[in-house]
Amino acid sequence: MTTTLSLIRERAAAARAASKRLATVSTGAKNAALLRIADALEQEQAPVLEANARDLEAGRANGLDAYFLERLTLTPERLRSIAADTRTVVNLPDPIGEMFDVRTLPNGLILGRRRIPLGVVACIYESRPNVTIDIAVLCLKSGNASVLRGGKEAQHTNAALGEVIQRALAGSEVPEDSVQVVSDPDRAHVEELLKAHDLIDIIVPRGGPQLIEHVRQNATMPVVAHGDAVVQIYVDAGADIEKSVTIVDNAKTRRYSICNAVDTLLVHSAIAPAFLDALAAKWGQKVAFIADERALSLLGGTSVPVEPATDETWCTEHLALRVGVRIVDNMQEALDHIDHYGSHHSDAILTENYTNAMHFFDEVDSACVYVNASTQFTDGAQFGLGAEVGISTQKMHARGPMGLRELTSYKWSLGMDR
Amino acid sequence: MTTTLSLIRERAAAARAASKRLATVSTGAKNAALLRIADALEQEQAPVLEANARDLEAGRANGLDAYFLERLTLTPERLRSIAADTRTVVNLPDPIGEMFDVRTLPNGLILGRRRIPLGVVACIYESRPNVTIDIAVLCLKSGNASVLRGGKEAQHTNAALGEVIQRALAGSEVPEDSVQVVSDPDRAHVEELLKAHDLIDIIVPRGGPQLIEHVRQNATMPVVAHGDAVVQIYVDAGADIEKSVTIVDNAKTRRYSICNAVDTLLVHSAIAPAFLDALAAKWGQKVAFIADERALSLLGGTSVPVEPATDETWCTEHLALRVGVRIVDNMQEALDHIDHYGSHHSDAILTENYTNAMHFFDEVDSACVYVNASTQFTDGAQFGLGAEVGISTQKMHARGPMGLRELTSYKWSLGMDR
Repeated sequence: MTTTLSLIRERAAAARAASKRLATVSTGAKNAALLRIADALEQEQAPVLEANARDLEAGRANGLDAYFLERLTLTPERLRSIAADTRTVVNLPDPIGEMFDVRTLPNGLILGRRRIPLGVVACIYESRPNVTIDIAVLCLKSGNASVLRGGKEAQHTNAALGEVIQRALAGSEVPEDSVQVVSDPDRAHVEELLKAHDLIDIIVPRGGPQLIEHVRQNATMPVVAHGDAVVQIYVDAGADIEKSVTIVDNAKTRRYSICNAVDTLLVHSAIAPAFLDALAAKWGQKVAFIADERALSLLGGTSVPVEPATDETWCTEHLALRVGVRIVDNMQEALDHIDHYGSHHSDAILTENYTNAMHFFDEVDSACVYVNASTQFTDGAQFGLGAEVGISTQKMHARGPMGLRELTSYKWSLGMDR
Repeated sequence: MTTTLSLIRERAAAARAASKRLATVSTGAKNAALLRIADALEQEQAPVLEANARDLEAGRANGLDAYFLERLTLTPERLRSIAADTRTVVNLPDPIGEMFDVRTLPNGLILGRRRIPLGVVACIYESRPNVTIDIAVLCLKSGNASVLRGGKEAQHTNAALGEVIQRALAGSEVPEDSVQVVSDPDRAHVEELLKAHDLIDIIVPRGGPQLIEHVRQNATMPVVAHGDAVVQIYVDAGADIEKSVTIVDNAKTRRYSICNAVDTLLVHSAIAPAFLDALAAKWGQKVAFIADERALSLLGGTSVPVEPATDETWCTEHLALRVGVRIVDNMQEALDHIDHYGSHHSDAILTENYTNAMHFFDEVDSACVYVNASTQFTDGAQFGLGAEVGISTQKMHARGPMGLRELTSYKWSLGMDR
C-alpha cells in the first residue's frame, strides 16, 4: 500500500511540477512538441502495435466481445489517423494568454481576465487507446499537464503510447513529465488519484454510470463528468416529414455506437402515422423499433422489426441499431419525458413551427438543444472546437463538448493606468 | 434522523421545483420581486430586529467576543443599507438569455451558447446575516433558487429574514419557494445537504479552512470554495516609494477586517530601508509589524510596534492592524514565498519596472494579480460586477469575485439555417 500510494503521488507530483513550467511555454514550442508526437506515432509504431497485440490476446483469453476488441484494436492506419488528429490540434489557436472582459474603471483601474491553464488534469477512461493520445494532446496544447488512467484491458497499449509521448517530449521544450500515463491496473491507484486534490486540479471520468458515480462520490477535486447519453428527438406535429426522416436517419445510422446517436423518438400523434410510415420505408430491416403500444399498432402494418417497449427502454442508451418510439399527444408530454428519462446531453425538436421551436429551446435543460438538426453534431470537431476531451453533461465550468478553451481558467490581472 | 433527512430534502426539493419556473421568469418580474424584498427590509423591520436581539442575547450568554457580536448586529440603518444593496442588483443587467460565441458553420449549422441559470445554489456560511440577503438576491436575479444555511449564532435573524423574503415573493411572479433558509442549527442538515446532488447544482462554502475542507471532502456536487486569504504585496527594488506607501496603507487600513487586506509585505532589500522608514512614518503606532530578523533590525530605530515573526506569521490571515514583513534579495524569493504561503487569492507587485511587472503577472497563480494597485480592489462591486457571492480561490468555473455571471451556465443552442 505504501508503494502504491507513493507511485501515484509521485506521478501526480511530477505532473504538478511540470505544469508550472508548461504554463509559460510558448505556442510555437508547444506546437513543435505536438508535431514530434505526431511524427513518432507514424514512425515508432512497432512497440505500440506489439503492446496492443498483447492486450488483444489477453482480451480474447478473458472473453471480451468482438465489439470491445474492435474498439481496442490499433492498426498502422489507425495510428496514422491519430497522428493526423494531433496535427489538427497543432492548427487550432492557443487559448492561453488571451485577455478578455478587459475594461478601465472610472478610478483608473484597468482589469481583465487572462486565460491560463487549469494546471493538472486527471482523466479516468475506458478502453479505446486513442483517448490516451487525444487527451494528452489537448492538455498539452492548453498548457495543462495530465495524469491518464485508462482501462486495464488497454494497459500495455497505453504504457507504450505513454513512452512514445515521453520520448517525443524529451527532445522538446515541453517538460517530459507533462504527460503521466498510469497503466498499472491496480485499482488502488484510482482511489489515491481521487484523494490527491493538492496535486490535481480537475478530474474527468469518461465511462459508464458506475465509474461516474464512484468518482463523483469520492473525488476531492472538481469533477467534470462525461456520463451516459440517452438522447431524444421530438417529432412535432408541425414537422416536415421528408426533412425529419433524413435527420432521424442521420441521428441513428451515421454512427450508431457513439454517445450522440438518438435513443428515443417522441412522435406527436397527429403526425405519427405518416412519419413512422416514411421512416419504416427508409430503414426497412436496418433498425429495430422498440415501440410503445400506440406505435406498435402503427408499425404493425409494416415489415420493420418491432418489439414492445418497457419503462427500461426509455432509460437505455442503445449504442446499436435500435430505437425507442413513443407516441405523445402534445409537446408537454415530450418535454416531461425528456426531463424524466433523458441525460441532459443532446435533444432535438423537428418542426417548422417557430413558437414550438423556441419553446423547446427554452424548456429543455440539456447541454445541446437542436432544432431541425441531427444530434450527431454534438462533437467538438463538428462545433468547430477542433477536438474534445469529452462531452460534459454537468452545468459547472464546461457544458457539452469540452475543447481547449474548456481546459482553461483565468486570473484577473489588474493595474492602475498611471 | 428520518425527520432531519426529510426536512432538508423537502426544502431542497421545493427549491429545485421553484428553480424550473424561476429559470423562465422575465427580467422585469425578477426585478419587481427584488424591489418588493428591498421595500420589505425597510418596512417590516420589527420582527427581524427582535430576532436579531435574541441572537445577540444568546451570543453574549455564550461568551462571543465583541468583534463577533458587532458583525452579527442588525440595526434599522444596516437593514436600510442591505435594502439599498438589493436595489443595486435590480439595476444590474440580467445575464440570463444572453447568446454568446454564436457562429454559422460551413454546413449551415448555426450554434451558440445561451446563458442559463445553474439551477439550485446552496450556500453554507458563517455569522453575518446580511449574507443571507446578498446571496438570495444575487441568486434570484440570475434565475437560481437557493438553499441558505447560515451560522447557528444567527439562526433567529436568518429565519426572520427568510420570512421577509418569502412574504415578499408571495405577491410576485417569482415562486415563493425560490429561497429556502435553513436556520435550524442541527449539524445533520449540513451533512444531508452535502449528499443531495440530485437536488443541488452547486455548493458554496464561505468560512474558515475547517468548513471549506469539510465541504470539499464530503460534498457530492460541485463546490466553489471561498476560503481564507493570506494576501501578499511585493515591494520591488524598482518601486516608487511614495506611491507604494499610499497603496500599502490602503491595502491594510482602508478596512483591515476583510479578506483582501494585505497580510504580508515582501520587501526587496535594496529598497527596504527607505520604504520601511516611510511606511513607519505614515503609520506611527497604528499598525504592528511582525518582522523577520532583517526587517526587525531596520525597524528597530523607529518607534513603531514590532515583534519577531515565526513561520506561522506567513500563513496568518491577520484581519487586524498587524502586518508581516519579510526582506527578500530578489523577486524569485518573493514569488516562491507567495506560491508557498499564499492563498492564491490576491497578490500585488509595486514597481515601476515593466519587465518585473509582466513577470509577476505571468508567475503568480492567484485569482487576482495586481500591479501598483491595492489588493482591496478584489471585490465584486469594485470590479464592476455589482455584487458578489464571495471570492473564489479555485480555478474551476469561477475565479475571484463571483457575481451574477458566475452564477450561470449555458446550453448550446443549435439549428440549421434552412
